[in-house]
Amino acid sequence: METSFYSPAEGTPEEQTEGDRVHGSLTAAVRELCLAQLQSRVDLDELEEITADIQRLTERLNRKIKPGAFGTEVGADERIRNFGNSVVGLRNPFAAMRDDAKIVWNDNGASARFHLNALYEGPPGLVHGGVSALILDQLLGEAAAAGGGAGMTGRLTLHYRRPTPLGDLSMEAWVESRAGIKTIVKGHIKDSDGNVTVEAEGLFIMPKWARELIAEEEARKKRPNFE
Amino acid sequence: METSFYSPAEGTPEEQTEGDRVHGSLTAAVRELCLAQLQSRVDLDELEEITADIQRLTERLNRKIKPGAFGTEVGADERIRNFGNSVVGLRNPFAAMRDDAKIVWNDNGASARFHLNALYEGPPGLVHGGVSALILDQLLGEAAAAGGGAGMTGRLTLHYRRPTPLGDLSMEAWVESRAGIKTIVKGHIKDSDGNVTVEAEGLFIMPKWARELIAEEEARKKRPNFE
Repeated sequence: METSFYSPAEGTPEEQTEGDRVHGSLTAAVRELCLAQLQSRVDLDELEEITADIQRLTERLNRKIKPGAFGTEVGADERIRNFGNSVVGLRNPFAAMRDDAKIVWNDNGASARFHLNALYEGPPGLVHGGVSALILDQLLGEAAAAGGGAGMTGRLTLHYRRPTPLGDLSMEAWVESRAGIKTIVKGHIKDSDGNVTVEAEGLFIMPKWARELIAEEEARKKRPNFE
Repeated sequence: METSFYSPAEGTPEEQTEGDRVHGSLTAAVRELCLAQLQSRVDLDELEEITADIQRLTERLNRKIKPGAFGTEVGADERIRNFGNSVVGLRNPFAAMRDDAKIVWNDNGASARFHLNALYEGPPGLVHGGVSALILDQLLGEAAAAGGGAGMTGRLTLHYRRPTPLGDLSMEAWVESRAGIKTIVKGHIKDSDGNVTVEAEGLFIMPKWARELIAEEEARKKRPNFE
């Protein structure tokens, strides 16, 4: 498994832009396929044909792959490309925070307006409680970073105040306090009527193992290359 | 959006079994496609052809759909069919707890052995902290139900003790205490060396709105049908 924090993305800036466009379209198409196959009521015979077609496309994609973890790349523009990320990844069909729903940073936090469809369902008609936790973890982590206290989740507490309906939602998070490597962030999800449905509090810290990994990587990059 | 807790599944028991087989295979194929498109390094021209093929398959699936929430069905065998569920749904490609990874109930809790691939990544090589929260919410909820205290998540607290690597993992949860409609459940995720990586504590309650919805539904079902 890949454990390095930084791996440079391949290609020129122009190649990266073009690759992102093509991969982004592919993933968006797969995301729509995921919903269609959940909601579809077409005949079983046709579903079996479609299944076989999908298997053939998977074989084509698998002819050349990078196996294992996707990792986080750094682009030619020095921007972080966490394209495999489960919540925000350009190349992850599961990512709910994409396109119009992207998380936006401000001086002391982050927010997002988004839509969750049936793929994010738990109880009938409602967002899965764990999905609320998933997207709040990402939002609070980004809020910590936006407020200057980037880190990994150390503790996350969620209070479920009322059901979160599938559909149009919003969420926001803000840095509540900072002390050394620890940042406390609070946030919530609101339904389309503006009611708070889930409240969250997170403690974000840069743990020792992560600081060591980053230091090791920095040292490696600074080492003269005689090869 | 569908808010009823119970909707009977269509078809005879045999038709349901056959439908589950076909839909389950379709979703499994889509799940493999999701990973393949993330890891694929085939040429951009071919990716664009594959994207167009996927869009055509989506169109075919969308010719006949049940829009909106998927809901929870009750089968001819009276078993709950939460097939849209984000963590365990037979028809949800995002569901991590499927096939060999299914959550198993015991007298006072639940457990699972599973494998998380790059689709569940957050930091490089590691499981997304929010994904750990997502799957633990489902596990703890099932543990509450297994222990006789079924409910919705009221509060969920996660302590991240060490990084959770992608790959083979296990988790378990148990009912710690019950009082009236409230059940406290504890649990954790372990890495393949048996180290606890994330600890969770959940409060599960059957909230008033859910009790009312269920009562309403029960009353509706008992009402004589003169139509």
